[in-house]
Amino acid sequence: MTNRIRKIINDPVYGFITIDDPLVFQVISHPWYQRLRRIHQMAFAHLVYPGAVHTRLHHSLGAYHLMCSALTELKNKGVDITPEEETAAKVAILLHDIGHGPFSHALENVLINNTSHETISILIMRVLNEQMKGQLHKAIDIFTNNYTKPFLHQLISGQLDVDRMDYLTRDSFYTGVSEGVIGYDRILKMLTVKEGDLMVEEKGIYSIEKFLVARRLMYWQVYLHKTVLGAEKTLVKIVQRAKELIQQGHEVPAASVTFDFFLKSPTSKAFIEQHLDKFCLLDDYDVLAAIKNWVFHSDTVLSTLCRSFIERRLLKVKLQAEPFDQDWIKTQRNNICRHLKINDADCDYFIFTGEAENTTYNPTVERINILFKNETVTDISKVDNALIHQALASPVKKYYICYYNC
Amino acid sequence: MTNRIRKIINDPVYGFITIDDPLVFQVISHPWYQRLRRIHQMAFAHLVYPGAVHTRLHHSLGAYHLMCSALTELKNKGVDITPEEETAAKVAILLHDIGHGPFSHALENVLINNTSHETISILIMRVLNEQMKGQLHKAIDIFTNNYTKPFLHQLISGQLDVDRMDYLTRDSFYTGVSEGVIGYDRILKMLTVKEGDLMVEEKGIYSIEKFLVARRLMYWQVYLHKTVLGAEKTLVKIVQRAKELIQQGHEVPAASVTFDFFLKSPTSKAFIEQHLDKFCLLDDYDVLAAIKNWVFHSDTVLSTLCRSFIERRLLKVKLQAEPFDQDWIKTQRNNICRHLKINDADCDYFIFTGEAENTTYNPTVERINILFKNETVTDISKVDNALIHQALASPVKKYYICYYNC
Amino acid sequence: MTNRIRKIINDPVYGFITIDDPLVFQVISHPWYQRLRRIHQMAFAHLVYPGAVHTRLHHSLGAYHLMCSALTELKNKGVDITPEEETAAKVAILLHDIGHGPFSHALENVLINNTSHETISILIMRVLNEQMKGQLHKAIDIFTNNYTKPFLHQLISGQLDVDRMDYLTRDSFYTGVSEGVIGYDRILKMLTVKEGDLMVEEKGIYSIEKFLVARRLMYWQVYLHKTVLGAEKTLVKIVQRAKELIQQGHEVPAASVTFDFFLKSPTSKAFIEQHLDKFCLLDDYDVLAAIKNWVFHSDTVLSTLCRSFIERRLLKVKLQAEPFDQDWIKTQRNNICRHLKINDADCDYFIFTGEAENTTYNPTVERINILFKNETVTDISKVDNALIHQALASPVKKYYICYYNC
Amino acid sequence: MTNRIRKIINDPVYGFITIDDPLVFQVISHPWYQRLRRIHQMAFAHLVYPGAVHTRLHHSLGAYHLMCSALTELKNKGVDITPEEETAAKVAILLHDIGHGPFSHALENVLINNTSHETISILIMRVLNEQMKGQLHKAIDIFTNNYTKPFLHQLISGQLDVDRMDYLTRDSFYTGVSEGVIGYDRILKMLTVKEGDLMVEEKGIYSIEKFLVARRLMYWQVYLHKTVLGAEKTLVKIVQRAKELIQQGHEVPAASVTFDFFLKSPTSKAFIEQHLDKFCLLDDYDVLAAIKNWVFHSDTVLSTLCRSFIERRLLKVKLQAEPFDQDWIKTQRNNICRHLKINDADCDYFIFTGEAENTTYNPTVERINILFKNETVTDISKVDNALIHQALASPVKKYYICYYNC
Repeated sequence: MTNRIRKIINDPVYGFITIDDPLVFQVISHPWYQRLRRIHQMAFAHLVYPGAVHTRLHHSLGAYHLMCSALTELKNKGVDITPEEETAAKVAILLHDIGHGPFSHALENVLINNTSHETISILIMRVLNEQMKGQLHKAIDIFTNNYTKPFLHQLISGQLDVDRMDYLTRDSFYTGVSEGVIGYDRILKMLTVKEGDLMVEEKGIYSIEKFLVARRLMYWQVYLHKTVLGAEKTLVKIVQRAKELIQQGHEVPAASVTFDFFLKSPTSKAFIEQHLDKFCLLDDYDVLAAIKNWVFHSDTVLSTLCRSFIERRLLKVKLQAEPFDQDWIKTQRNNICRHLKINDADCDYFIFTGEAENTTYNPTVERINILFKNETVTDISKVDNALIHQALASPVKKYYICYYNC
Repeated sequence: MTNRIRKIINDPVYGFITIDDPLVFQVISHPWYQRLRRIHQMAFAHLVYPGAVHTRLHHSLGAYHLMCSALTELKNKGVDITPEEETAAKVAILLHDIGHGPFSHALENVLINNTSHETISILIMRVLNEQMKGQLHKAIDIFTNNYTKPFLHQLISGQLDVDRMDYLTRDSFYTGVSEGVIGYDRILKMLTVKEGDLMVEEKGIYSIEKFLVARRLMYWQVYLHKTVLGAEKTLVKIVQRAKELIQQGHEVPAASVTFDFFLKSPTSKAFIEQHLDKFCLLDDYDVLAAIKNWVFHSDTVLSTLCRSFIERRLLKVKLQAEPFDQDWIKTQRNNICRHLKINDADCDYFIFTGEAENTTYNPTVERINILFKNETVTDISKVDNALIHQALASPVKKYYICYYNC
Repeated sequence: MTNRIRKIINDPVYGFITIDDPLVFQVISHPWYQRLRRIHQMAFAHLVYPGAVHTRLHHSLGAYHLMCSALTELKNKGVDITPEEETAAKVAILLHDIGHGPFSHALENVLINNTSHETISILIMRVLNEQMKGQLHKAIDIFTNNYTKPFLHQLISGQLDVDRMDYLTRDSFYTGVSEGVIGYDRILKMLTVKEGDLMVEEKGIYSIEKFLVARRLMYWQVYLHKTVLGAEKTLVKIVQRAKELIQQGHEVPAASVTFDFFLKSPTSKAFIEQHLDKFCLLDDYDVLAAIKNWVFHSDTVLSTLCRSFIERRLLKVKLQAEPFDQDWIKTQRNNICRHLKINDADCDYFIFTGEAENTTYNPTVERINILFKNETVTDISKVDNALIHQALASPVKKYYICYYNC
Repeated sequence: MTNRIRKIINDPVYGFITIDDPLVFQVISHPWYQRLRRIHQMAFAHLVYPGAVHTRLHHSLGAYHLMCSALTELKNKGVDITPEEETAAKVAILLHDIGHGPFSHALENVLINNTSHETISILIMRVLNEQMKGQLHKAIDIFTNNYTKPFLHQLISGQLDVDRMDYLTRDSFYTGVSEGVIGYDRILKMLTVKEGDLMVEEKGIYSIEKFLVARRLMYWQVYLHKTVLGAEKTLVKIVQRAKELIQQGHEVPAASVTFDFFLKSPTSKAFIEQHLDKFCLLDDYDVLAAIKNWVFHSDTVLSTLCRSFIERRLLKVKLQAEPFDQDWIKTQRNNICRHLKINDADCDYFIFTGEAENTTYNPTVERINILFKNETVTDISKVDNALIHQALASPVKKYYICYYNC
């Protein structure tokens, strides 16, 4: 039993998560992975759902756990997966979100312009691969879909990947929105592989429908909840105002040198590639500590936004099917300018509109294939009596407005 | 239906928490209460149990929910409780932890010398009472046990209070340590009042035993888990080192003016009373953001401790029934000094011992009284065939040592 | 506290069910209600889902519990409901299934020809009303939809009644089909009344969609699971064979005089009305004990069917979208006749076809109305971006065949 | 993938139970195993806890599932277990309760005099072994503790066996007595083997304490609940009366030939060995259907007991620490005789006393050994600060009286 690594982690969602692979253990122990402890999985959803304070680290551990189950199920069904591929798939899912910055999606493309978290994940994985002497090669190939067995990539990033299965399960668990619960264990048991592609056995059709409906519900009820949306958009405004003031030559000290650095620099993919080590120091604490400081900043716009955020006296938000009336917006805008004694340009920080959209299932870009007993393959939206009909394939768009409530 | 306040909050533990009292709503909306969102309930237990990231706000909302249930049960049994008393008890439990500072118990009596969080809670409640025009009078009387119906205080602070019931329930839920689960709903149904005192009906004996055993388990398995203990003691060392350096005249800028202020000042109860508004700005973010900054401080002691903390390369911890061998400690200590190239005095930050203790049930200071059908009252440790025997009344003491692992 | 009735029943699904009304207590104590303990809620679903052995009594207690919650929520929203109406609604839901005979739906219209269980429920309620001196008048009016507040009836029997909410919740709980779980607590909080009719608040749309999808899943995955379907159809064949033999003058003693009586009589509504007391002696035990006896009956058809049933060597079942090929059936049929050495007519007992159908949501006969904030009312299938589309309004029909597997 | 057996069973307690061994599948399919579907796991506990209607079949499947987990854990820790031993241990646990008769423990030693269900289990296993051509040899050796690796037997029948783990878990689940929940998954992970014996790792001490406390609670709160006790003792009285009447030459037809046979015969181990096939036809349905018939029997004693049972108008029960006062009993007895117009001898059926006892942990006959890191082994009641103290080693005895409530 010597030298065997075997660590067991309690998880309220799955019971116990087991780690028994040295490379997996090495990845988890890395400071860059540990940083994910300090990034909320759901940004500011906890302002509405106080339980939703779980972290990116917990989510990626959870997705890793589901990956272990999925691989075991597939191997039991006779799918050929080598031990090396198994480790690689586990490492890849552990690192799939390593590129997330503070408050995850809420500041994506804002802190680092035009650069998705997946792009940064790959950059980080490459550096880790060097540090770990090439041990992550296969994991990177799987993650970037350059591996000969596409189903391994599809388990990480696809319509039915373990990432989605974990976040829906975990987010519904922590928010207490029990209706978002999916039958992840049954779906895992229904997975199969045909000609290299991930499929679902016929018996799993209703579970898949349920999965899509749960996801739809979670989007509109939780992720795009108007108060959550409003808080996250306000966060963006705060960061934008800080950058703007800095560009105008004002002093806007954040709470850390690291965050100062990113606020002052014109960011981009090339930039982040050069400063990856600094990026890997950044987390929610840098941003929120700065916002707490800025409550006392001399700029009214910045301090007002920050105070409303910290004291949870949030901007008012409306969400509806049609665009908002421009005249009504103008009146509100005038009131706000007068009330806060700010000029018209600055009022953009206190009243702004946007669009939120979500697609229940888009068969053209993402496919869930059902493998029937007679070996035919059919898209979930094309099976007999499909719940997931054509009308659900186009995105639902809603309009929101956030505004300071005088 | 106008003017009626009715807010429903999703809670993964209890389902839904309802707020339907204007004063309760006013208290929850106050920025000082909202601050509790930024204080972890379990400090650094999440380093071992990654799910345990819930907040003081969530805990106090949960305790409030149990208080609502307890009051309803007692009223149904004919106990006389007026609507004013009900509101007061609810407000008192909501505010029972308002005096906690960053990382709750971990820094209690460290950031503010010799001042418990309860003392600060009372100070804060008095100021809130002024702000809210005397509406909190009765809540304060209940909280300080100066009210004519002692059972209301006992529900907040006693051996069987809703505070403990919520934290055991919530902490076991979020850690995933299912064995810490207690039958809170059954205990609530077994509560009764005799001559003003809270008691438990005879039928509830086994539930109470189970409650005490679950608490015992949670202490040794979670709250005093050696890694959790080590991390929290390291946190104390970090704050002490920062204070020491400041007193020696070094620059040790934290991440916020607020935390700077408390690090530089000789704190005490009188001091905190004077600067309550500043205290109410302080939370986990101030402390952790400072620690992140100090990773790069020029003082080796401070930066080494901070780095080990942030990267989760924690001090090694041992916990045992007997004190540690002094010779062994001396050897370790010398190794550390040599390895880190620090002087002997500074080595106190890298190797230190202490004691952890917990009492399963101490009938002399805390009593759980069982009311038998024949109206006699007996302490839970004195009932026939009691599980909770005399030997469990004295505290169990364990010795720990934390040390830098060369 | 004298004379107050307060009984608490543990329920694995809801925690605790409280009974605090003397009339409710009287109804529950009645032998006819207690009979429901001996009727499986899900007939033979436990042959596939071994946990699904819960009873009609448990289901009706659960529905009663949800009724209590629903009434409390509605009263909190200002809906006018008198204490008498409350008791009546609770009694009505307790008794809504009192007319079920052995194995519930599986033998409905078989043991008692052309008489639904609702019809029998009303007959029984009338007799109980006499026994209880008219105390059930209002409950009967509500049950039969003759009461001035239609929403009370809709809570018992409608598209969103507490009957469905409990059976979906309870059946998914006991089968372990977690995907059938619905957010009953959230739905209850979203209920409202407009102009006497039950409606759902706008915020509840996604919960309702989820409810309909869960029901759809439960039908195809559980209630109409091919093995369950096959077992229940075999049960019908057994009873039919026994009746047939009796009509032909054979001796087919059941295990009880009561069941003998019903097997020998030409049943009908008028008949059952006359022999209600005998009907109320009948339960699963009469039928299954008889089947156990008939394993040893001299008639090959009866004994073979009974043995396959008791030993769980069930008829083979296929379920598909198209009707079965007649030639294939004929071949099978011949094989069976030869194998079992029975004549062609008797072979109807060993190979038979039928249709199973279920409608996800039929807006013409059942409506779920959504009440929008602007007071307009819209059917759930007509709201923007409805999941529940037109195609789901027509029933899905599947064809089954059960046959003896030579 | 051909010929591979892989069956998945939904279980509300554990999620999914997997069967992937042909011999296991063969055993489960046997009619004698299927008979366990018709035996309630908890006899008449459902009269108090309506959810507790699960079956012996479900319990033994659950224990089988835990056995699978335990074996996997032990193998992962390097314990040597061959595939044949694995199958044998699984078959042995599946069959450990096969010898239970109707209503399990309630009629043990009553229907079949002086013969425990374990004795009958072995008899049945031997016959099955013949039927299955010796495939059960190893399973029988393990079951009867004649195998060279004692830990395999200890997993089936010992202080910490999977039988207890399943019944505590399942019974608390189905009754809704959440306080009986044990951390079975953690205990399984803490199991280890030293010198052939099953032990628990040091870290598992608190889980084991919790397990013993949960069992203690379940005994007094559920298994020996006074109403449950009373119902089961009444059941015994009913069977005894029927036998008595038969011996006196009266006609007391049961509902089946099988039950008639056992009521009329002087049973014993030798007898049951001879009529094992008949025994394997007997289940709850034979007994309860007979009781339903006997409600109308001409013997007042029998019909009165049966009616009270079926209508749940049970005998009154008291349970207390001291024996009951003989004078009080005499008075009650006289009242009952007068009220029911029966003679004094028959009154024994309507008022009777007895003792119930339970031991929390008896270290002399059953041991739970803790394996410390330093390889020493200590009994759980002897570890430092043990919760499970000496006083709990002697049985707690309580006295009950059941009597007809005039």
